Amino acid sequence: MSDSRIDDFVAVIPAGGVGSRLWPLSTPEHPKFLIDLLGAGATLIQDTYARLAPISGGCLVVTGATHAAAVGAQLPELGAESILAEPSPRDSMAAIALAAAVIEQRRGPAVMGSFAADHVIPEPAEFRAAVATAVAAARTGRIVTIGIEPTSPSTAFGYIQAAGGLEGVEGARDVAQFTEKPDAATAARMIADGAHFWNAGMFVMRTDVLLGHLARLQPGIHDGVREIAAAWDTPERADVVARVWPTLTKIAIDHAIAEPVAAQGGVAVVPASFAWDDVGDFASLAEMVQADADGRVSISRTAPLGTVEAPGAVAIGGSLPVVVVGIEDAVVVQTDEAILVTTRGAAQLVKNARASLE
Amino acid sequence: MSDSRIDDFVAVIPAGGVGSRLWPLSTPEHPKFLIDLLGAGATLIQDTYARLAPISGGCLVVTGATHAAAVGAQLPELGAESILAEPSPRDSMAAIALAAAVIEQRRGPAVMGSFAADHVIPEPAEFRAAVATAVAAARTGRIVTIGIEPTSPSTAFGYIQAAGGLEGVEGARDVAQFTEKPDAATAARMIADGAHFWNAGMFVMRTDVLLGHLARLQPGIHDGVREIAAAWDTPERADVVARVWPTLTKIAIDHAIAEPVAAQGGVAVVPASFAWDDVGDFASLAEMVQADADGRVSISRTAPLGTVEAPGAVAIGGSLPVVVVGIEDAVVVQTDEAILVTTRGAAQLVKNARASLE
Repeated sequence: MSDSRIDDFVAVIPAGGVGSRLWPLSTPEHPKFLIDLLGAGATLIQDTYARLAPISGGCLVVTGATHAAAVGAQLPELGAESILAEPSPRDSMAAIALAAAVIEQRRGPAVMGSFAADHVIPEPAEFRAAVATAVAAARTGRIVTIGIEPTSPSTAFGYIQAAGGLEGVEGARDVAQFTEKPDAATAARMIADGAHFWNAGMFVMRTDVLLGHLARLQPGIHDGVREIAAAWDTPERADVVARVWPTLTKIAIDHAIAEPVAAQGGVAVVPASFAWDDVGDFASLAEMVQADADGRVSISRTAPLGTVEAPGAVAIGGSLPVVVVGIEDAVVVQTDEAILVTTRGAAQLVKNARASLE
Repeated sequence: MSDSRIDDFVAVIPAGGVGSRLWPLSTPEHPKFLIDLLGAGATLIQDTYARLAPISGGCLVVTGATHAAAVGAQLPELGAESILAEPSPRDSMAAIALAAAVIEQRRGPAVMGSFAADHVIPEPAEFRAAVATAVAAARTGRIVTIGIEPTSPSTAFGYIQAAGGLEGVEGARDVAQFTEKPDAATAARMIADGAHFWNAGMFVMRTDVLLGHLARLQPGIHDGVREIAAAWDTPERADVVARVWPTLTKIAIDHAIAEPVAAQGGVAVVPASFAWDDVGDFASLAEMVQADADGRVSISRTAPLGTVEAPGAVAIGGSLPVVVVGIEDAVVVQTDEAILVTTRGAAQLVKNARASLE
């Protein structure tokens, strides 16, 4: 059943985020979701779309106005009407709510699922099976998230605590609560109990359910996106967007919907064991790619990578041979813009790298 | 007097050595002496020649056959007859002895001084003053070396122990003995007594004195270079070189001449305090160049060097901006051949870098 198309299921792909810890691969002009981060032949947004298309009855990408043309060029299967361009970033709630309102305006209530454009999921069939279960759970009126079974006590992700099984939907459970990124001790305790899952930011729900919660919890966003959606496919779109969009509250869907609705018992989780990563920095990127026999990782390269007393070296991009001497876990990145040299352990500091050139 | 030409003084510049710890700046095809290592606008052999030309009555470069054309192109002032091409490397004694024999063959006995093509001396006038003193000392029949006053207890250089003053030549002293590269404790003890100097491999001597010692200590080399020199400016050169050169003993001038002659009281030293470095690796290269206000060193670059928690960074060559994140004393080198990433502390290991690509 995992690869059967669900006609009333619309995949929504929010495509934002600068990926500053992946500079110079990811830049504001050419962000993470538009690049072939793994060197596998497809960009992350192309992978995301390809993963969802087999089970979706439609797809909307919500992205910044400056990237709409690039998204269209990378996804020619998607018509221009399926790319919603935000004039400015107003966080995930506004983006997802706009998509929900446009879906209802165009076709009436449907089930929607929101999946970030820049995550990596190497097992698409298992992913789709989880989405199909989540769609079934969403039909009961829940906000449904997909929870990733933790493979380590990561402190880089938020966690979802599951409660009992969701009545009538095998494979889904009620959500007790969401927890923000924990410290290491808390993370270790949570993964030991078997009831905590990584929050991958995937939400599946009926558009009418989402918009109903919004009308109650964030009425400004609800009314705003309804007004914009009504004008979207008319000559008034530009005027209404220019007037209303900047007034929408900047808030993440987690805080606006998931956490308060969970507190009221309205959220379910579909636990899933497929591999998933948001590939936030070069250390996690290196983990996604097979090392050679000597533990070296090369991504998007054909030239050799040599090492002298330098275990764990990573080379990304560029056409020149690279040699690392006497540095452990070194990461060397070359693009047309710059050369970055760091270590896996310092990967989080890369967010300040570009600014250091100014 | 330091910049007066000495008509019967011939500067000999052995131009060899791969500089493997400076790869990929220095390569077998384009070794250290042929490159503008400091990014100062001249190659090391051009600097060496320019330093010696004002006081020399002639100059000979001894280099590998594969580099003779490049040397000629870099030193157009030097006629082709002043570049002696070795068909294969046979260490410094054969190279210097060949130069001595060719000088005698062409012009009769003279004073010669041998100075490596790939050392850095930022104060040429002080260097020439020391050479002039060394020439005066050499006229007494000594083998004369120039000893650099140590600025640190370096374990990278050999040392010369001076004895009493050389009679009749102010500024020169007898040599008690040569010491090979010491350990740190020995180096510290030696520089504390004020009588030890770095051995910079500079030798000044009369050609007849050198060839006389050779005839006694290394008769095979003596006879061989005499035979080659007799044929050098004749049509027989190629045949004689092909037959005799490969038979010459491979030995350094230090072991063949300097050490045994010193033991017999025949060597003098001219102590000198000019700055000198053989720039053997990237750590010493970085020390030769002024750091910016943040302690960063850029060589042969116009693009910026950024750092995030990375003190002491060094960037060499290349046209791309470089950013180092979270690595102390990092060294990043870019050429058309490769990118090398190391640290100042690991600079000695670079000699194995190129082989790691094979």
